[in-house]
Amino acid sequence: MQQAVDFKGFTRIRRVAAIAVNTHGGRAKCLQRLIRLDFPVPETVALSFDAVHRIADGQMTDVDTLLGIFGTKPLLSVRPSSEDPDWGGPGAMLNVGMNDARHAELTQSHGAEAADGLYLRFVQSYSVHVARLDPDMFEFDKDATTAAALKTALAAYMDETDEPFPQEPAVQLAEVLRSMARAWEGTTARLLRQAKGAPAEAGLGLVVQAMALGVGPGESGAGVMQLVDEVSGAPLIKGRYLRQAQGRDAMAAGAQTQVMFLTRDKRGSSLEADCPEIFAELVRISKLCRVKLREEMQIEFTIENGKLALIDAVRVQRSARAALHVAVDLARDNIIPKSEAVTRIAPRSLTELLHPQIDPRGSRSLITTGIAASPGGASGKAVFTSAAAQASAARGEPCILVRRETAPEDIRGMHSAAGVLTERGGMSSHAAVIARGIGVPCVVGASEISISMRGHAFTTARGVTIKEGEIITLDGTTGQVLAGEADMLAPALDDHFVELMDWADSFRDIGVRANADTPKDAATARNFSAEGIGLCRTEHMFFDGDRLTVMREMIFAKAPADRAEALSRLLPMQRADFIELFQIMQGLPVCIRLFDPPLHEFLPHDRAGLRELAEALDLPLSDVTRRVEYLSEFNPMLGMRGVRLGITIPEIYDMQARAIFEATIEASTQRGGEAVVPEIMVPLISAKREVELVKTRIDAVAAAVRNETGKQFTYRLGVMVETPRAALRAGDIAANAAFLSFGTNDLTQMTYGLSRDDAGRFMNTYVQQGVYPEDPFHVLDVEGVGELLAIGAERGRARHPGVTLSVCGEHGGNPESIAFCRAHGFDYVSCSPYRVPVARLAAAQLAIKSRES
Amino acid sequence: MQQAVDFKGFTRIRRVAAIAVNTHGGRAKCLQRLIRLDFPVPETVALSFDAVHRIADGQMTDVDTLLGIFGTKPLLSVRPSSEDPDWGGPGAMLNVGMNDARHAELTQSHGAEAADGLYLRFVQSYSVHVARLDPDMFEFDKDATTAAALKTALAAYMDETDEPFPQEPAVQLAEVLRSMARAWEGTTARLLRQAKGAPAEAGLGLVVQAMALGVGPGESGAGVMQLVDEVSGAPLIKGRYLRQAQGRDAMAAGAQTQVMFLTRDKRGSSLEADCPEIFAELVRISKLCRVKLREEMQIEFTIENGKLALIDAVRVQRSARAALHVAVDLARDNIIPKSEAVTRIAPRSLTELLHPQIDPRGSRSLITTGIAASPGGASGKAVFTSAAAQASAARGEPCILVRRETAPEDIRGMHSAAGVLTERGGMSSHAAVIARGIGVPCVVGASEISISMRGHAFTTARGVTIKEGEIITLDGTTGQVLAGEADMLAPALDDHFVELMDWADSFRDIGVRANADTPKDAATARNFSAEGIGLCRTEHMFFDGDRLTVMREMIFAKAPADRAEALSRLLPMQRADFIELFQIMQGLPVCIRLFDPPLHEFLPHDRAGLRELAEALDLPLSDVTRRVEYLSEFNPMLGMRGVRLGITIPEIYDMQARAIFEATIEASTQRGGEAVVPEIMVPLISAKREVELVKTRIDAVAAAVRNETGKQFTYRLGVMVETPRAALRAGDIAANAAFLSFGTNDLTQMTYGLSRDDAGRFMNTYVQQGVYPEDPFHVLDVEGVGELLAIGAERGRARHPGVTLSVCGEHGGNPESIAFCRAHGFDYVSCSPYRVPVARLAAAQLAIKSRES
Repeated sequence: MQQAVDFKGFTRIRRVAAIAVNTHGGRAKCLQRLIRLDFPVPETVALSFDAVHRIADGQMTDVDTLLGIFGTKPLLSVRPSSEDPDWGGPGAMLNVGMNDARHAELTQSHGAEAADGLYLRFVQSYSVHVARLDPDMFEFDKDATTAAALKTALAAYMDETDEPFPQEPAVQLAEVLRSMARAWEGTTARLLRQAKGAPAEAGLGLVVQAMALGVGPGESGAGVMQLVDEVSGAPLIKGRYLRQAQGRDAMAAGAQTQVMFLTRDKRGSSLEADCPEIFAELVRISKLCRVKLREEMQIEFTIENGKLALIDAVRVQRSARAALHVAVDLARDNIIPKSEAVTRIAPRSLTELLHPQIDPRGSRSLITTGIAASPGGASGKAVFTSAAAQASAARGEPCILVRRETAPEDIRGMHSAAGVLTERGGMSSHAAVIARGIGVPCVVGASEISISMRGHAFTTARGVTIKEGEIITLDGTTGQVLAGEADMLAPALDDHFVELMDWADSFRDIGVRANADTPKDAATARNFSAEGIGLCRTEHMFFDGDRLTVMREMIFAKAPADRAEALSRLLPMQRADFIELFQIMQGLPVCIRLFDPPLHEFLPHDRAGLRELAEALDLPLSDVTRRVEYLSEFNPMLGMRGVRLGITIPEIYDMQARAIFEATIEASTQRGGEAVVPEIMVPLISAKREVELVKTRIDAVAAAVRNETGKQFTYRLGVMVETPRAALRAGDIAANAAFLSFGTNDLTQMTYGLSRDDAGRFMNTYVQQGVYPEDPFHVLDVEGVGELLAIGAERGRARHPGVTLSVCGEHGGNPESIAFCRAHGFDYVSCSPYRVPVARLAAAQLAIKSRES
Repeated sequence: MQQAVDFKGFTRIRRVAAIAVNTHGGRAKCLQRLIRLDFPVPETVALSFDAVHRIADGQMTDVDTLLGIFGTKPLLSVRPSSEDPDWGGPGAMLNVGMNDARHAELTQSHGAEAADGLYLRFVQSYSVHVARLDPDMFEFDKDATTAAALKTALAAYMDETDEPFPQEPAVQLAEVLRSMARAWEGTTARLLRQAKGAPAEAGLGLVVQAMALGVGPGESGAGVMQLVDEVSGAPLIKGRYLRQAQGRDAMAAGAQTQVMFLTRDKRGSSLEADCPEIFAELVRISKLCRVKLREEMQIEFTIENGKLALIDAVRVQRSARAALHVAVDLARDNIIPKSEAVTRIAPRSLTELLHPQIDPRGSRSLITTGIAASPGGASGKAVFTSAAAQASAARGEPCILVRRETAPEDIRGMHSAAGVLTERGGMSSHAAVIARGIGVPCVVGASEISISMRGHAFTTARGVTIKEGEIITLDGTTGQVLAGEADMLAPALDDHFVELMDWADSFRDIGVRANADTPKDAATARNFSAEGIGLCRTEHMFFDGDRLTVMREMIFAKAPADRAEALSRLLPMQRADFIELFQIMQGLPVCIRLFDPPLHEFLPHDRAGLRELAEALDLPLSDVTRRVEYLSEFNPMLGMRGVRLGITIPEIYDMQARAIFEATIEASTQRGGEAVVPEIMVPLISAKREVELVKTRIDAVAAAVRNETGKQFTYRLGVMVETPRAALRAGDIAANAAFLSFGTNDLTQMTYGLSRDDAGRFMNTYVQQGVYPEDPFHVLDVEGVGELLAIGAERGRARHPGVTLSVCGEHGGNPESIAFCRAHGFDYVSCSPYRVPVARLAAAQLAIKSRES
């Protein structure tokens, strides 16, 4: 079968040998490191990426020479060695070199059971993976003896291939190498690794190692050891050992009954108790590995007749929490510098550490239970379609997406939802996998509920019906579904987390604030060390309870004076809101966006609501209907809102400015006279004159408040840059603005001409077809929207060098967007409170990276 | 009264004297020209802007020296001389210098009636305009004798001022000069002239001239003469003469009974008949004026005892049509060059020449009649608010704005309307003035109609009720209002018009195309010499009649194949549409925009419509309702339309491309094989990949059609740049585009974040408060939208030097926008057919201007 010209392409792994991750793969390199540490690693040979590629192409390495390295009777393992272990690769092949003769010898030396087992394992894997025979033919009942199974397997191979099982080790090895090389080139394998970030041309190395048998006389077996818990990150000696076993058999589920734990514990025998010297050596090796390889490693070892062999070491797979603990502990132990600890944590992985939990002390109105698929608690309005979830998110209202089950087209909806509840599915269902990935609390398989997609409602087995818009709470940690909103506890931010973030902040060179509208948001923001509020939307201050009634009276007022009168009743409420925010933020900056939504959002649109309103206002229904119709808009996003309302109905901004200034005075008094300096942000600016007009009125309100109270205070007036024109004219606009804060949500909508509320129906198609590389509402469009940001920043700063620049759209928390803002000299980013740690970490990593390069 | 230091500041107007328009005003300069022509102009002195300004400030010119110029017994007129006659100024003062002594002398020399009249006129105007006494006290009954009136007037002056009427000519003149100088500085006068374009610091000169009396013995009187009809522009000797009169008395309405026309006609005596020599001299002077002053002038003359004096000459006020005739005739006569004829016509003034007329041969369904306030015919849906008119225009539907009367807040609505109908008002009502100004047909004072603003309907005296949305026709030339749509005749484009436009085209260096959707539009475009169609919207090809039903079936189709089947039934209709357009355009380029509107525009939204549709489609009402709800959008402007539909439902563009290609083949055949090269434009692009995807499919359709027919053809595929992102990414996009056509309507909406449909409610406030200098939907926003145009043009051309650049938004016809496009190297502008001549002329003027500078 070996028609191709032989070539070499392999290297014995020695202390000094040209082995590199990008030529021979990570496993080969790691083994070299272990050898350099004088660990008892069996003879190992590495085949380079290039060699494996040539083998896949039909050439063959010089197998005879290769075999010669391992002596006269080689028994070998072959394992993959790619650049990144996450990219996968073919499974390991053990016992290459087994044949009838070797079997006979080993029967003598190690006993029949051991020899049969070794031969059987090779025949099985060779038949299935190399000869590609039907795997079912090589599976045997548990009660079949190993001897019988071996006999059957050899016969089956003969039956299927019309040839006896290959006896020549050189033939065996060549075929194993070829099959592993070709498996790497397969389309499926390629797509899978590319999905994990592998480049198209990613290579595979192979590692050929002399087997340490782990079976036979004396203490023989195989196991793994690590020094850390992969879930909690806590330091502890952890691992398994299985006698008369090879490779990672100890980890196989079926081995659980005979498996031994390493350390002494109450469950009987252990390696520590039975073989204290070997155990001590393993601990020594593990600890040295941690220090020298600068990482928590899991070592793979074999004991052959009392003699320890170190087969391999791999990075401990770990949860986000464990990763954080490991990085911090390595830095605390001075194994890695703090900057490296900071860069080792993927910023997005923090999300799952930060989610609030439902307060166990609160009362729970349980309506049903499902599988706890993604941890954390979440409350929000029930919605039944991804589109509704996206629309809700666009309105800034948390929602729980309720689906029978989810599919890829729901991913955007899941991103938008505070939590996900499904009727069907288990821990590995689409909903569960995605929700964990994006850190959204999720309960799946709540099979007691019955969803009516038409009715936009679900009913529980207890007969409770939840309609769209009603608030429910998910406990993704317990699987409970509750009616209403539950009290939440902030996540436990342990000392490791706090320490890592402190280190991050010491490197970071761009500010991070939070978008926070309510005292609760503000408290969360403080908890996550936001350096202020970058966007406080004030809409909710007009919607809540009685305030809505007052707003409606304002809308129906006949004259400016009547409007001002209605608004004056909102003044004390808003003042109290602002005082509370200032108190929570303890002198940190609070950037308050003036009223933004169109007035029609405050009015009912259905018949019943209109009738009710007419009665409440004591007006004819026709008057109310006409007013509502008059205020309705074709394109509310592009309509009468923001500063346009502020200019045509200036009483609203007047009232808000007064509430802010009066709250400023009160909060300063409460802080013992320490100045509170509010920031006032004008939304939807498109022309400099808008800023001038608003500034004139707000300055007048400030003067009036100073006059009335005899108190002094200062404030900063700035602009939300969210229309393309504002970005283009940022020079003009900055002349009258203390700060420019770029609202990338609206800016993206207008730059693309794309309503976020309406884009859901085609965004999937668009991203799938590569029309947009990413949903621009999730990942900042650097080419288009980004250019407007860059233009705006440059012009704003050129005209007004002291102007503060920031981004307060939802992109503010994305590492890519932070990189962009940092590169363009922005002062800070502002994002949702739970994204603040992500942003702090991402910003620190950028600073470290730029310092290093 | 003359406490201030005297200064000079006046100049005798001689052949050689430093008189300039920008130091002494247009009247002074014109009088100098008349003097240089040796015309019999009485002694004239000019006061400079500076002198008048000092007089207003409290100083006084050396009146005694000034008076000395005019001899011992001066009788003078004082008239204003501003830089532009349109800027207004104080009224002329005649007979300055009259006093009791002069009155007594003139009674002797000219008779009591003449002397009384001269004195009375001066006392009246001095009392009212200089002494600022109550005008009512100086008005007299017709049957009062002049002598009695004079006596009463002198007594009234004494009563009111406790002083006798000033007798000293120096005092009279000083007071007259002071009052005229101060009148110019008044706030109202300043605002009025600034509204007409005068700069803030515009100056006033004054002209002091010896009176030619026009009263007394022999042939005495005053009149005016011009050589052109001010309405038609036709050459003819025209004017009036009144015996025993001064100044422009002949033009006063009250003088009509005794007034004489100049030329012999059937109505009795004439200057030509009575004083043939003077008449001949006047004609000679008028003709010489025309040649030497290079303009049609109206001369003002006085005959004193048979002796002719030329008092003044002013430019003949004229209609747009007359202006065009005059300019062309002056150029034909080689008095001015053709380029100057072209620059003399304000492009916007052409609009009123171009409006169609109702075909007199068609039947008329007359419902009421009003005052014919602005000429031309117009049909459209009746609307009752400016907002509705703007919304209708935004939808591309012509409408007639019906109001009780209009006010400034209706101007935007009037701009949007095809015609305006008011219940109240006359020829000088707001509606009439504005409508004429903007060239919109208008009928005012249709007092027989009764408008119900609530019911959105009006009822005529004949009992006909027209509801909002019903089509009516206005005949602004006759004042008739007709039910339904009337046949229209294109305006008569006479030889003068055609000649001027030919001259314009010979200078023009930027192309002008028309936006034309229908054969009628296309014919109009051709009629106005558009160089092709720059924007052919295809929406109407889906809405008309049966096509709507097919569209709805397409929308409700379950599978792509069903959609394609439904669309295939539209194919022959669209093919026929395109063939007709290609035929009309005779090989000129036709740029066809692919389907653009959101699908929900094709669906009913009211209960009845939904029920009807459910029956037609044989589907449950709930299915139909659900689909309609699913397709409805929060912000349709930013939703699923344009290329987004083209990519998600590619069958629509496939069908359109096929219709275009099949029509191309047919039209080429009809033209004897001469190639027709269609242009296909993809709307709402925001990413280059959109272009690539659409291009791939359209290329495939072209290949299929070539295959099936065996015929070859070519086409140009381009992009409508109407999102800010498309402008920013124009480089990328141009790589796959033969042309980039900037849709400034949508680009303005997105750049400002401003829906045109919704902006009506605050645009007036915004423009009044100077937030926006102009409505950006009327005048291109050069600073914001313009920058995106410039960026897009530059990047598009840099990446693809051969790319064709154009503007196809409504701004395309605005002279300011054309200047912008020309400066940025655009190839052509495209505008509505009736704007084409405006655009041609404006473009020619720009070319001439830039050639001259």
